Amino acid sequence: MLLALLQAQAHVLDGAANLATIEDAAARAASAGADVLLTPELFTVGYAPRRLRSELDPASLPGLHENVARIAARHSIAIVYSLPDVQGASWKITSTFVDDAGIVRGSYVKVHLFGDGEKEVFSPGDRPATIIDYQGLKMGMIICFDVEFPEAVRAAALQGAQLLLVPTALGRGYESVSTTLVPARALESQLYVAYANHVGVEDGFALGGGSVVADPFGQILAVGGRDEQLLFAEVDPQALEKARAEIPYLTERRADLYRGWGL
Amino acid sequence: MLLALLQAQAHVLDGAANLATIEDAAARAASAGADVLLTPELFTVGYAPRRLRSELDPASLPGLHENVARIAARHSIAIVYSLPDVQGASWKITSTFVDDAGIVRGSYVKVHLFGDGEKEVFSPGDRPATIIDYQGLKMGMIICFDVEFPEAVRAAALQGAQLLLVPTALGRGYESVSTTLVPARALESQLYVAYANHVGVEDGFALGGGSVVADPFGQILAVGGRDEQLLFAEVDPQALEKARAEIPYLTERRADLYRGWGL
Repeated sequence: MLLALLQAQAHVLDGAANLATIEDAAARAASAGADVLLTPELFTVGYAPRRLRSELDPASLPGLHENVARIAARHSIAIVYSLPDVQGASWKITSTFVDDAGIVRGSYVKVHLFGDGEKEVFSPGDRPATIIDYQGLKMGMIICFDVEFPEAVRAAALQGAQLLLVPTALGRGYESVSTTLVPARALESQLYVAYANHVGVEDGFALGGGSVVADPFGQILAVGGRDEQLLFAEVDPQALEKARAEIPYLTERRADLYRGWGL
Repeated sequence: MLLALLQAQAHVLDGAANLATIEDAAARAASAGADVLLTPELFTVGYAPRRLRSELDPASLPGLHENVARIAARHSIAIVYSLPDVQGASWKITSTFVDDAGIVRGSYVKVHLFGDGEKEVFSPGDRPATIIDYQGLKMGMIICFDVEFPEAVRAAALQGAQLLLVPTALGRGYESVSTTLVPARALESQLYVAYANHVGVEDGFALGGGSVVADPFGQILAVGGRDEQLLFAEVDPQALEKARAEIPYLTERRADLYRGWGL
């Protein structure tokens, strides 16, 4: 299964521009043979929590969803994209998996909110990774800061995830998330982890690029610099089985003990 | 607090030779100003589970403990060292913290046993990291494979550990534990992690060196090659506080949710 990641700059509150970026990426990814395109956190509207809350019209959200679904269907590629979900006064950060026919297969609400900006604006989710069966693989969905917590990835792996699709908005200066934590998550919980970030500056926030795909041996299969680019990585279920047989972390866990340890 | 790590080859079942290596390291570490010397897993008798079980006389163990205590007192340096613990038919892998006066401050039993060799010979422990208060720092003790499980390090951090002292016997080919997992543990659970390995071949098992100290930003402070060496790293409680203030992973955990997720 060939996976593509969009690493790009979003334009805050300019859905048309961001959809055009997604469509261009979907076209290129599909023609390269990719089955799934992962896009960054809140890419469809820009990563700007406080501005979104004060200026984004929730009535525009259904149209954005529909447009991404049309792009997916037009280019026959599944797309993972991120938008706010608004229910009355409750705003949440979500990601959605839409398949190559434009049908929504599932969505996820971010559990671990990062920093004061997100916490002022959004409410956190309380459910573990959403798992989608697609192209013979179990694909898990979490968002950004979630992946920095081994618990969030462990829960996805225990639910059977073989590939974790993680839209992110990682600021400059936090490169160790890409270089250290993401490969560690893949190795310790024995799955592929794909982490797609923005580049550039959005609403004054400098985003660091460094999108990455790590395999279940903890090796980095693809890594982005600080410029816009499309990354590709092959997800191989046989390599996954080999990793799981070599050091069976998931079965060697002492789950019987951990709860008594206060975890 | 200056920490020293011994990376060296042990001689299987030759306690006198291994004690001489420990004493030489203790002398050099103490004269460099180190407060604590960390030595590898089962270094005192060599890493050879099946041979230890068939050939090691348990009656020799008290003498080995006494000798390490004398070395610690003689050079005024605390030493973390590892030996089997034998109670009737039950053999366990332990580490012991002996202070600079030769007084034992605590010991730990390895929870996660690695591979068939260890599982045939040893019984696992069931308690989280042992925590020692020493030189104004809370020092946690776990062993080798334990550190590959984020849960083991999380439990130590939640008990207050600021520095985790990890004797290991890491085989060649598993370098990603040193390069990826140890720095990730330090970053995600916000503590210093020191990981001291053997080099060379013991009872046919090729050990990889690559001993490492990582700080709570996930940065590597010291790393060993494949030869014998003494490594040093400064453990700075102020840097630890800075890391914990910057991204408070330990308080941002959604501990209320994880149990319901089956962790």
